[in-house]
Amino acid sequence: MTDKTPLTLIGLGPMGQAMVTRLLAAGHPTTVWNRTPARADAVVARGAVRAATAADAVAANRLIVLSLTDYAAMHDILDGTDLAGRVVVNLSSDTPAETVRAAAWLAERGAELLVGGVMVPAPLVGDESAYVFYSGPREVFDRYADTLAVIGRPDYMGADHGLAQLLYQAQLDVFLTSLAAMLHATALVTSAGLTAEAYAPYLTDVVSSFAMYVAETVRHVDTGEHPGDLANVAMMGATAAHVVGASEAAGVDAGLPEAVRSLYDRAIAAGHGKDSWTALVNVLRG
Amino acid sequence: MTDKTPLTLIGLGPMGQAMVTRLLAAGHPTTVWNRTPARADAVVARGAVRAATAADAVAANRLIVLSLTDYAAMHDILDGTDLAGRVVVNLSSDTPAETVRAAAWLAERGAELLVGGVMVPAPLVGDESAYVFYSGPREVFDRYADTLAVIGRPDYMGADHGLAQLLYQAQLDVFLTSLAAMLHATALVTSAGLTAEAYAPYLTDVVSSFAMYVAETVRHVDTGEHPGDLANVAMMGATAAHVVGASEAAGVDAGLPEAVRSLYDRAIAAGHGKDSWTALVNVLRG
Repeated sequence: MTDKTPLTLIGLGPMGQAMVTRLLAAGHPTTVWNRTPARADAVVARGAVRAATAADAVAANRLIVLSLTDYAAMHDILDGTDLAGRVVVNLSSDTPAETVRAAAWLAERGAELLVGGVMVPAPLVGDESAYVFYSGPREVFDRYADTLAVIGRPDYMGADHGLAQLLYQAQLDVFLTSLAAMLHATALVTSAGLTAEAYAPYLTDVVSSFAMYVAETVRHVDTGEHPGDLANVAMMGATAAHVVGASEAAGVDAGLPEAVRSLYDRAIAAGHGKDSWTALVNVLRG
Repeated sequence: MTDKTPLTLIGLGPMGQAMVTRLLAAGHPTTVWNRTPARADAVVARGAVRAATAADAVAANRLIVLSLTDYAAMHDILDGTDLAGRVVVNLSSDTPAETVRAAAWLAERGAELLVGGVMVPAPLVGDESAYVFYSGPREVFDRYADTLAVIGRPDYMGADHGLAQLLYQAQLDVFLTSLAAMLHATALVTSAGLTAEAYAPYLTDVVSSFAMYVAETVRHVDTGEHPGDLANVAMMGATAAHVVGASEAAGVDAGLPEAVRSLYDRAIAAGHGKDSWTALVNVLRG
């Protein structure tokens, strides 16, 4: 017997399997279900209970954790199951709007939704670097925070169900855009016959500098003041145009740097030429 | 008297002034000229010699360093001066193609071009973190490497004049795109009423993770093999679409994440769905 909260986890991709492994290790009785049953084999071998159907999985526990591709998958799987009295913690990625709709859908069926955004890849679930954004009813979060802490530090962002998803998308926004830029720059350099490996130390150098710009960025955005300095919109915009030109000359797709140049062009047209580059936020907000 | 190489530096914006200050401190006799003469006052007070005209500045020394907005400014300033026997080290930003044209223009006038790309902002000129990409004739680089080391570690990239500029543009490509993404994500988060300051620790966290992706990126690009893993094109492309959706719903300009999504969409259409995200390089190369 254990006093650890029992739960059901649905969705056994690499992320779901990593979570179940951590929850079992922490002593939580865990029931699992996956559309492709074989994906449950490894965690069942570690002590998870296999549910025969999604309805059985939902019936087994009050706390239902979902690790799925998106919110459409939740509707596919939970539709027709008896959700009365359940707390659904959905850790799948989707838009904030879809998240808010899902809360209403679950409420109609007597269930509560806690939205989560897991900010580490599967191998780092439960690691000290792992954290998870949550939004939804505060009392639901508080009730299960100790259990959820097993998969990563739980950070509560607010009652609006969309908030955790918005924070998750913001993090992935920076992540996907910057990775694409790293690859774009590598394509530029290798177009001239240099190896990507020769470029690696420089790439590491530039990406290691970004953290030092965070404090200035958030201060300017919060105050709405963008005092110009060495890195003003006009100067950085001129460079953005050079990057587009260099890309086109090298035969490297210019869509990504063109999107950046467009922001600078519009900021200059709006009179922000001598402001700090952070004045681009005025263009981004439309 | 000094045995330190004397030189002329033209262009006294913040970057040029920082360079002259460092060169004077290292004992290099330095002649300066700037279109707006008052910008020379501070460095003249520190010991620089003021030239009355650009022609006088070029006549004063064999080594001519330029710190200008772009290469068009070089043509404006040097046209009509006697460049015979001069070595022009142009540290201005421009496209690689413009750089190659400038080398021919100078060669017609009996001068040699060494192209430089300074990879630190003005306050860090001469700092141990400072480095400068150079390209052009190897023997010209070798002759002046000790002098140029005063402003930052000189890294020679090759004889093709465009190379230093290409490396510079690649670094700025990553820099400008990632800064724009940081601001875009901050706009997303603040659209929901959170402060940018509340988002700062998370923003720092995500930008601090990029360096760990460099080794995989360059290995995949150099080998041309993109083994799929937890971060394949299909999964990251689905997230890229969610970021676009979240941006549109929040009223934040979606041009930047849309450019990222477009790369994923094209990579999926080209059959790279199960490859690593680094397979986007095939789309970037067209």
